[in-house]
Amino acid sequence: MADSTHFSPYRADGKLYGFVCVVTGATQPIGKAITRELAAHGAACIYACSRSPTEDYAALAEEVNKEFPNTQVIGYPLNIANEEDTLGLIDEILNATGRLDVWVCSSGLLGPPSIADTTPGDLQKCFEANSMPPFFALKYAPPAMAKLAIKKGSYSNAAPKDQKYGSIIVVSSVASTYGGTGIRINCISPGQIDVGIDLKGFDMRGMTAQLPPASLQSKEAQKDHIGLERAGLPTEVARVAGFLASGFSSYVTGANLVVDGGASTMCPLTVPI
Amino acid sequence: MADSTHFSPYRADGKLYGFVCVVTGATQPIGKAITRELAAHGAACIYACSRSPTEDYAALAEEVNKEFPNTQVIGYPLNIANEEDTLGLIDEILNATGRLDVWVCSSGLLGPPSIADTTPGDLQKCFEANSMPPFFALKYAPPAMAKLAIKKGSYSNAAPKDQKYGSIIVVSSVASTYGGTGIRINCISPGQIDVGIDLKGFDMRGMTAQLPPASLQSKEAQKDHIGLERAGLPTEVARVAGFLASGFSSYVTGANLVVDGGASTMCPLTVPI
Amino acid sequence: MADSTHFSPYRADGKLYGFVCVVTGATQPIGKAITRELAAHGAACIYACSRSPTEDYAALAEEVNKEFPNTQVIGYPLNIANEEDTLGLIDEILNATGRLDVWVCSSGLLGPPSIADTTPGDLQKCFEANSMPPFFALKYAPPAMAKLAIKKGSYSNAAPKDQKYGSIIVVSSVASTYGGTGIRINCISPGQIDVGIDLKGFDMRGMTAQLPPASLQSKEAQKDHIGLERAGLPTEVARVAGFLASGFSSYVTGANLVVDGGASTMCPLTVPI
Amino acid sequence: MADSTHFSPYRADGKLYGFVCVVTGATQPIGKAITRELAAHGAACIYACSRSPTEDYAALAEEVNKEFPNTQVIGYPLNIANEEDTLGLIDEILNATGRLDVWVCSSGLLGPPSIADTTPGDLQKCFEANSMPPFFALKYAPPAMAKLAIKKGSYSNAAPKDQKYGSIIVVSSVASTYGGTGIRINCISPGQIDVGIDLKGFDMRGMTAQLPPASLQSKEAQKDHIGLERAGLPTEVARVAGFLASGFSSYVTGANLVVDGGASTMCPLTVPI
Repeated sequence: MADSTHFSPYRADGKLYGFVCVVTGATQPIGKAITRELAAHGAACIYACSRSPTEDYAALAEEVNKEFPNTQVIGYPLNIANEEDTLGLIDEILNATGRLDVWVCSSGLLGPPSIADTTPGDLQKCFEANSMPPFFALKYAPPAMAKLAIKKGSYSNAAPKDQKYGSIIVVSSVASTYGGTGIRINCISPGQIDVGIDLKGFDMRGMTAQLPPASLQSKEAQKDHIGLERAGLPTEVARVAGFLASGFSSYVTGANLVVDGGASTMCPLTVPI
Repeated sequence: MADSTHFSPYRADGKLYGFVCVVTGATQPIGKAITRELAAHGAACIYACSRSPTEDYAALAEEVNKEFPNTQVIGYPLNIANEEDTLGLIDEILNATGRLDVWVCSSGLLGPPSIADTTPGDLQKCFEANSMPPFFALKYAPPAMAKLAIKKGSYSNAAPKDQKYGSIIVVSSVASTYGGTGIRINCISPGQIDVGIDLKGFDMRGMTAQLPPASLQSKEAQKDHIGLERAGLPTEVARVAGFLASGFSSYVTGANLVVDGGASTMCPLTVPI
Repeated sequence: MADSTHFSPYRADGKLYGFVCVVTGATQPIGKAITRELAAHGAACIYACSRSPTEDYAALAEEVNKEFPNTQVIGYPLNIANEEDTLGLIDEILNATGRLDVWVCSSGLLGPPSIADTTPGDLQKCFEANSMPPFFALKYAPPAMAKLAIKKGSYSNAAPKDQKYGSIIVVSSVASTYGGTGIRINCISPGQIDVGIDLKGFDMRGMTAQLPPASLQSKEAQKDHIGLERAGLPTEVARVAGFLASGFSSYVTGANLVVDGGASTMCPLTVPI
Repeated sequence: MADSTHFSPYRADGKLYGFVCVVTGATQPIGKAITRELAAHGAACIYACSRSPTEDYAALAEEVNKEFPNTQVIGYPLNIANEEDTLGLIDEILNATGRLDVWVCSSGLLGPPSIADTTPGDLQKCFEANSMPPFFALKYAPPAMAKLAIKKGSYSNAAPKDQKYGSIIVVSSVASTYGGTGIRINCISPGQIDVGIDLKGFDMRGMTAQLPPASLQSKEAQKDHIGLERAGLPTEVARVAGFLASGFSSYVTGANLVVDGGASTMCPLTVPI
């Protein structure tokens, strides 16, 4: 691993130098922060995907490029639950850049607040939004990530790939397992992240929401229940994704990184296990 | 396993028929409930151990025997952190009854409420109280449990052992691992159990208490944080020990049974992992 | 809890005396063993459900009743992934018996052996088979289990329900969370259980099979990797279900019981966590 | 957090710019790699501690400084299980540098290979080596890390501390819990790391070794059991420590990072939980 200079985190260019990345849910708070973080690490290209074709992708690219002008941010409307569309994206990436290195599934659908309010149709929609995209990523990204030295495409800053490398990151989902030679697959489980959504009256005792909104909990509750006594920021999830994306985490695979400010170890009524 | 009638839970005599058991911490609320539960399942003999030589063992035996007259409850003062004493107990058991089947470590020392209040001496005491007894049980009980058909002792209701069997249960501790042929080793992690101790002002944010007292938490807090909306009873921990002691759990080993009324899955601020 | 004699495990009739139970997947090895186990504990009625209308339900009932004549085993063809059918079953149960106490989801679909072989259609089928039935159970069983003293139906051995009680058990699935007052929800995660299926050449490094077949692993592999050095039996999973179904586990909810002979704590290359 | 430029990972100087760090076990393979990694991230001073007073600390400092000349590496003989010595180290650090930011407990004692070979004295030694150092770190480092703007000492490259910050990292131990405002506490659980120790004949079924030696396992076993099909390198553990030490992991506390190449999710006989 240490043989290739392309993994060096100490290059002037940054630790994801020459890498080509995909981020889904890239127009949501956490996905946007992840896109920015990968750019900060020097990624060559980032395909910033969103379900909606009408998102202002140009604004996202401009925002990121203001700080990190060397990263090409490519807005890409994608139905992440559709096999054809996913395969089409991978083909386009390989044709254009000659490589694929990092895939971050950061899309996700918040279900109804309680199981009583949830219909089978809701569950089906959650399945499609939360299970299909990681499934397609786990099925199709590893073979694409294993391809070396294919005809270089038109993006000049995507370096020619000279050794197998890949990092797949699923944000907040039941984790995956096997990645095969050189491709690592990990999961991030965010705790209470302040994503700016207000869901007053949300029933925490019902089936769980993927990202309980910060506004739900008083400052007092945060002091009592979170070790760091505050909600997290999207960028704090993004930095963990940056770590997993990079060669810094080269022996981390099959892991679940809990990013919750210590909340899950502080349940006040139970004996820690 | 199904070959021996001695494992049948459907005998009139009960499912621990003919078994010889050890319970440490037997004069504490959870240990007492476990002793009673093993008797209810038909155990032949129970060595009810306590650190203190002055405990009223006769009262404990009488209380259990009022309901379950067929179980011999033998009060046994034991320094559980002492190797000689533990070996002496095992020798006495094998000489007197010819077999050993179940060992429940239910002693445990509650450390100071916070790490700031904890001295190295406190930690040493906790180590001796919480780690040494399981260590001796894991080291010396399995070979004793594997002994068959040794000269029967004086207790007429301990059946001759005709196949390897053993169940070691550690209450609230970091779990153990390997038991070898036929000897199973498991851990119980109780949540908030009402053991009748009042520790007002106890600092929950300090290092953890082994058994957070029920009185610490208001009824309201219990409603919010515990699925079953109440503290547990010692007998509810004891019944889990009874299950693990019996042949009902014959393929359960290396497991950690959380007995917390659902509290650990309800941490209100985090995404379930 | 101790107030009602209906929870007493020490009645001559058994510890599920008067209870009405549902078991899905009841004609598969584990489901069949669970049905038999609930009968052994004295359940009044068991609705033995299977997807196939042509199963020989009479043979199953006869087999169980040979040993346990007091339990009414009712074969019930059920599309477990269909909401109407699930609601219809609950209605029928309440009309006929006046109560519902235990629901065991033990159906499950084994997906293709590797992710490369898995189509979106396969994943959809697994979702329907593995997620919809627990969803319907978690959504509709708790309110039905909370009903007391409703008009008694035609089954004379179903006792009138005089306090809230319920136990929902999901076999091998990602666990559930909240049960509400008196209704407990738990998960069983079996390890290698000998279910008599031979899947030679099965790719363990692909996506995981729900129940890796015993025949896949040599006796040598079992000795190396399983603490108890053998595969488990369906009945050993069933007994854990019996424990969770009964009042013995009254403070156990939100838990995941690993029934794997110690395999998961023995992974030979890693540091235990 | 984002308010201080001292946390910026994008400074030319590196992301631990101005930080003062402690590493225990610094002359062992993993500790040495961690020391090098913290230097690579721009740490101002690293107290490289080892139990032995006769270690060649100058060689370690020279080795690190060849690559990273701006980091002051201070060899420090320390009895990590002694309270006085630990307090003395902290005093010296605050006097000399005016701040303390990162504490990595990477010492640890490998016990005997099986419980049968383990004496109470061995267990006591393991307790002293594995529990006392994290205890002292958790007790005394947080207050020292919370100190701001104290009289600057003689090391010119330790920046004046202008906001609370701290990261405590325990390598391979049962994890800790609460860190208080701004101080984060995490655990790293390495899998099979090639530390160059040969322990042929080591009994894996006995009590577990902290770091199973790579030589124990054939290349074939690694292919079967580790997702990445190879043992890890000390530097791959070190990089995870670097991540936890830095502000990149600012919302990660109370977490356990498994660095095992995927081994723990691949146990071939069990259903993943």
